[in-house]
Formats: sequence, C-alpha cells, structure tokens
Amino acid sequence: MFSAFDERMMLRAVELAALGRHTTQPNPCVGCIVTQGEQIVGEGWHRKWGEPHAEPLALQAAGAQTQGATVYVTLEPHSYQGRTPPCTDALIRAGVRRVVIGVLDANPKVSGDGVRQLEAAGVEVQVGLLAAACGELNLGFEKRMVTGRPRVIVKTAISLDGRIALANGQSKWITGAAAREDVQRLRSRMSAVMTGIDTVLADDPQLNVRDPSIDMLGRQPLRVVLDSKLRMPPSAAMLKLAGQTIVFTAAALNVPSNSLGVAGPTPAAAPGAPPSSQAISEVSAARSAGAAEGGPASAADQLRAVGAEVVVAAVDADGRIDLGFVMDELGRRMCNDVLVEAGPTLVGRIIELGLADEIIAYVAPVLLGPDARTMANLPALQALDQAQRYTMHAVDRIGDDVRLILRRRDAS
Amino acid sequence: MFSAFDERMMLRAVELAALGRHTTQPNPCVGCIVTQGEQIVGEGWHRKWGEPHAEPLALQAAGAQTQGATVYVTLEPHSYQGRTPPCTDALIRAGVRRVVIGVLDANPKVSGDGVRQLEAAGVEVQVGLLAAACGELNLGFEKRMVTGRPRVIVKTAISLDGRIALANGQSKWITGAAAREDVQRLRSRMSAVMTGIDTVLADDPQLNVRDPSIDMLGRQPLRVVLDSKLRMPPSAAMLKLAGQTIVFTAAALNVPSNSLGVAGPTPAAAPGAPPSSQAISEVSAARSAGAAEGGPASAADQLRAVGAEVVVAAVDADGRIDLGFVMDELGRRMCNDVLVEAGPTLVGRIIELGLADEIIAYVAPVLLGPDARTMANLPALQALDQAQRYTMHAVDRIGDDVRLILRRRDAS
Repeated sequence: MFSAFDERMMLRAVELAALGRHTTQPNPCVGCIVTQGEQIVGEGWHRKWGEPHAEPLALQAAGAQTQGATVYVTLEPHSYQGRTPPCTDALIRAGVRRVVIGVLDANPKVSGDGVRQLEAAGVEVQVGLLAAACGELNLGFEKRMVTGRPRVIVKTAISLDGRIALANGQSKWITGAAAREDVQRLRSRMSAVMTGIDTVLADDPQLNVRDPSIDMLGRQPLRVVLDSKLRMPPSAAMLKLAGQTIVFTAAALNVPSNSLGVAGPTPAAAPGAPPSSQAISEVSAARSAGAAEGGPASAADQLRAVGAEVVVAAVDADGRIDLGFVMDELGRRMCNDVLVEAGPTLVGRIIELGLADEIIAYVAPVLLGPDARTMANLPALQALDQAQRYTMHAVDRIGDDVRLILRRRDAS
Repeated sequence: MFSAFDERMMLRAVELAALGRHTTQPNPCVGCIVTQGEQIVGEGWHRKWGEPHAEPLALQAAGAQTQGATVYVTLEPHSYQGRTPPCTDALIRAGVRRVVIGVLDANPKVSGDGVRQLEAAGVEVQVGLLAAACGELNLGFEKRMVTGRPRVIVKTAISLDGRIALANGQSKWITGAAAREDVQRLRSRMSAVMTGIDTVLADDPQLNVRDPSIDMLGRQPLRVVLDSKLRMPPSAAMLKLAGQTIVFTAAALNVPSNSLGVAGPTPAAAPGAPPSSQAISEVSAARSAGAAEGGPASAADQLRAVGAEVVVAAVDADGRIDLGFVMDELGRRMCNDVLVEAGPTLVGRIIELGLADEIIAYVAPVLLGPDARTMANLPALQALDQAQRYTMHAVDRIGDDVRLILRRRDAS
C-alpha cells in the first residue's frame, strides 16, 4: 500500500510536526509535505494557535506545483470553518491528486469528515502511514478530543529504592543535571504543570520553562496548585513569573457551602459531574464578597491581587479536592497534557484513581533507605494483581540516571 | 599500536573466553587465538578447572603453524607450575613471535611475570588490547586475587517504588518471566548465591541454576545461608538439590563462647581479622561435641546429616554474623563472585557496609505503595551526600521490565 518513498516522506512530515511541540497548544502538532514525482516541492508545519495550519503552508511553499501533487500530512486535514478555513478546501482547490494521512482526527465529531470531503472531490486518500509515530505527536490532544480531559503525566525523580527526598525533606539533588535539563524539555511540551500545596510550601518551585535554548514563543505551561485550605502564600516564587497560575481550593471562602451546593466539603457534589464554569464563577464571586480579614476569602483576594486565579473545586467523598473536577476544568481550558510534579500524597491519589496516563521516572543510582520519603502514597494491597499495571514504554539513559516511561496498560 | 585486525582477533578471543563463563570457576575465563599473517590457525578457551588452559589448546589446534605466529590471549599467560604447566613455557616452546595480551593477571604475586618470561625468551609482547572487555570477563577473579574476597553482586526484583513484596509477603511475581530467566543466566556465572534465613523461612528458595539450556557441566553455585540462630530447617528445598550448601551461624552450639574466643557474641572477635580455617574447624568440632537435644548443636547436626556444612562465624560488634568474616571465608573457598538474593535486612547491611560491588535491579512497571516491603533497610541519612553513590553501568530492557546494573563508584 505504501512505498519506501511514502514512508520517508511521512517520517519527514513527523519531524516537521515535532518542531511545533512547544508552541502549538491547544492545537495539535501537524507536519505536511507536497511532492511531485519523487521531489519535495513544499513543506509546512503548524507553529502556533491562530497561525496557518501545516497544509496551506506546504501548498503555499509548493506554489504552482500543487496540481496533481501527492500530499503527506501527519493528521487528518480539518474540514470545518474554525479560526482558519477548512484545510480540505485548500487541498481540493490546489488540485492535489493524492493525500496520505498518518492518523484520523480523534475528535469523534469530525474524525473521517476530512477524508470524506477529499474523496467526494475526487482526491485519492490513504490513511495509516506511520500511524504510531503520527499518533505519538498528539496523545494529549487526542485524549482531550475524546474524553474532554487532558492526558496526565506524572514526573518523579527517585532513588533506586523509590525515594524522592530524605526524611528531613532534602531532595537537591537526587538525580543529576542532565535529568533536570530533560525535565525542562518535558515541561516545554506540556499545557500545564500541576503540584500540591505541600510541595509549594516545602520547595517553592517555579514549575516554568527556563532553558534559554527552548523557544516557547512567549508561552509558559499553566501552573496548577491543588490547595484545599488555601494556604498558598502570595509570595510564592511561581506567582512572580511570566505565565498563569491557577489555585484550586476546597476552602469555603466564608460562604456556607450548603447555600450554593456546588463546592465545599459535602458528598453532594458528585465526582464526574462538575458544575458549569458559570456556576463556579458565581460561587467564587459570592464567596469573595463574603471575605473576612484573614479567612480563606481574604487569602483568595490576596492571591488574585498578585495575578493568581483561585477556583473553588468540587470535593470528593473524603472532603479533598475532586481530581475529576480539576481534570474536567483543565480540559475545558483546552489543556492537552498536564505534568504532575508533586509529593507522595498527590502522586499517590492520581495513581490510585487511575488518572495517570504516563509516569516518567528519573531513577538515580543511589539508595536512600526506608526513612526517606517515598514517591507515592498508595493504599496497602492484599494481592499483587490488585496493583495498577503499566507497560515499560521507553527506557533511556539521561546522564548518570535512567529515565523510565511507564504507560497505563489500558491507555490509548 | 594495535591494528584493526588485532582488534578483531581479540574480540574473537573475548567471545571464546565467554564460552567458559558458567564453568571455569574458580579459574578465570580465558580465550586464545593463534594467527599466521591474517589467518586464524588455532583457537582455544578454558572450559573447566583442571582441564587445559586456552593457550595450549589454541597452540595444539594450530599444530605445525605456531612457529613465528602471533597469539592473542585475553589474560596474561600464567608463568608458574600449578595444576597445569606454565602457559608461558608452551608459547615459548611453540616458537611464537608475538603475544598480544588483553589484561595482566591481577594476582600481585604473578602479575607481569608472564610478560617478563615471554620477553626474556625473545617474544614480542603487547598488553592492553580491548582491556576493558577482557577485564569484564573476570572481575570477580580479579577482585579475589587482589583482596582475597569475592566480588559481591546484589540482585533485587523491585517495583518502580522500590518494593520487593507486599506487606503480607507476597512477591510472586513482581517482575516477569523474562527477568526470572535472566536471573538463571546471572546465577550460572556465580560462584555462590547467598541469602538470609528469613528468606529461607518465608520463600524456601532453591537458589540453583535449573534452566536446561545452560550447560553447567554439573556445577551448581555454592548456596550460602546466613543464619545467626541456626533456624534453618533440614527440610529446606535447597538441601535436596545437587550442589553444596553452607550455613553460617553465630549460634554458640552449646560451648561457652569465651572459652574459645573465636566466635560468639563478643566484640573481641575483630571484623577483618577472621580466625584461620583450622581454628573454625576446631571450634565447630568442639561445639558439636557439646550438642544438646534441641539446641543449636543439635540443629547443626541435623543440617549436617542432610549434607549442609555448618560454619560458626565471627560476629560483629552488634552480635550479628560478621559479613567480613563470611566474605573472607568465601574467598578462601575460591569464590570469585557471590550473588546476594536476600531480603531488606541482609541487602541493607551489605549496602551499608559498602560490600556491594554491583547491584542488579530488575524494575517492574508497577507501584506497590509504602506498606509494601522495601528492598534495603538502611540507616536514616541527614544529607544526600552521605548516601553511597553508584554509577549506572548498564541499562537493558528484559521483557516488560528493565534491568539496571549499578556499580560502586570506587569499584575497580
């Protein structure tokens, strides 16, 4: 079905698509190549939301040579009027003869429409060339399209015996400089970086991309702090940096929780059934209005004064911030990939609830012993088959450490 | 200094040497090639203690073509009369022109003597071709020659969070079948496999090589059990298998410990200054003579009755079996490599004392949580730089697990 030339072209299109991995969000990374015979006559890749897509850029680069051309594109061309006109129209108008697609658009509302429109116009379409590599470019986008939630990646830096810090909290540094540089590249591909309030209070992390060799086009991943009791200090380092910070809280902000019925420590707020964003805003406004000196509402006002957004989250049956609510909210904000860099409590809950699509563990060749802090608090198991199993997706040496990438076994 | 042909020949000699890795012990693995011009005229490798060495085998294979030949040998030819005549003599008598050696014999009593004897006879000698690969063949032999003690390799099968079993003891299986098969290959290269009595009582392990695809020529690694109080059951599975088992104990075998001053829970037995083997035998005999029904001496007799050897060990300042004593004793018994497959107590002590030359960790893509059992009990650290640091020597995927090989940073 596909020739060696086809494969080389799609591989090149994947390379082009990956050039946008720091900057296309919330859009997917897409690469496109236009060929005549066995000559490349045009290349394009999507760089940034609101800028042209890969296909029109590649067609434009091909100029007069699009008539009868073969086009390679990593993701199905979109077929609807969005911020940019449909790419299917551009391909049809350009008179291309054949379009080779890596993967279909995962959005069930549009998946296959691009193919059908092209075929209806007499264009030959083939789907599935290097589908795995093309799919890898946009796993988070794909998950959000299908589920409305971001892909969740847990990052941890551990000793061989699974420890993230000494008992006294010391954690600088278990892994080496190369691993820390790799985390910068990892963050640069993320929509958001999430942590817990305990980590903020203990380490005051920046959670930003600060490697000058990575051109983010001004973007920073959204910083997300889970902070049930709103203990986040307005002086936190991350609040002084470029980019946005959202603090999710379960604090009642001085409004009786039963008067609104949305958040607050009541099991009535069912997980998986979050309130609409409008409801949240109303709650937040009402609670802010009831702020008392030194109370949670006052704390929220102080955080807002230094640019943070404070969102009152639904709580789960145990009175903790409902992580399903948080993921839905981040999905609504068009986050494709969320990196969790947190302590054992939050990491443990995310793993226990089966929310971790991927775990990226930097493992250092050192042992810290049982008094040191473990990477994830999880409930005791009675049998090994109760444990959440992952697959060992990738294994790479990073300096003197090793990076293990685990993926949930049932993850797409 | 060395040509590409030289390198290819030594690489081949390394391959030949490795054929003996299951069976040469306590001898080192050695491979040898005889060439004329750029033709191989003879090959040999050492197979088993008491059988001919690699050099005479290769010379014999070369027949009449040894005169003026170049010989490649992974380890310096031995120059003294041992169980076999000196290989240097054989090379000189065969009239070879040039000998290329991978590494010198590590034994300080003979190291360099082989080279000097060859040179004195007019043979051109070069040392150091593929020295790292040649050295890797015999790290344990080399350590024993230099220090009198075996190389210690700790093997562990852990979850990503460093756990070897659930709280209830369940550990079958954290890692997959491929990792367990790899452990068979690992054991096959070992002189001895060591465990603690708690592991024997909990898991009743066999500690043997039972993969039928590995030809051990009848050899089994020596099984070593550390058993302070002599709780080893005579019904233990390993005592029914081919091969020897040694049980080290700190039990007094009903003889007052101060009457002999060798073992028993007294700090007077200084670590690093073990008694001679004669002294041990006398102690053992004396204590056996004092055996009472149901006491340690009786237990020792029962173990001896089913073929185990019981050795009374020196104890350390905390009253535990002195691991230095055990390593000295295993060195005296010509063990080159000891594999430790044990629980967190013994593994922790070995790591804490700096006795682990290598840690081989099979890491499974699963998390078991803080209630599960950790791989190594170690004292709490106050600062990260107090931790014993290793280097990440090798990283390999084994089935769906990963095998990490850590080496002590200051290890040879």
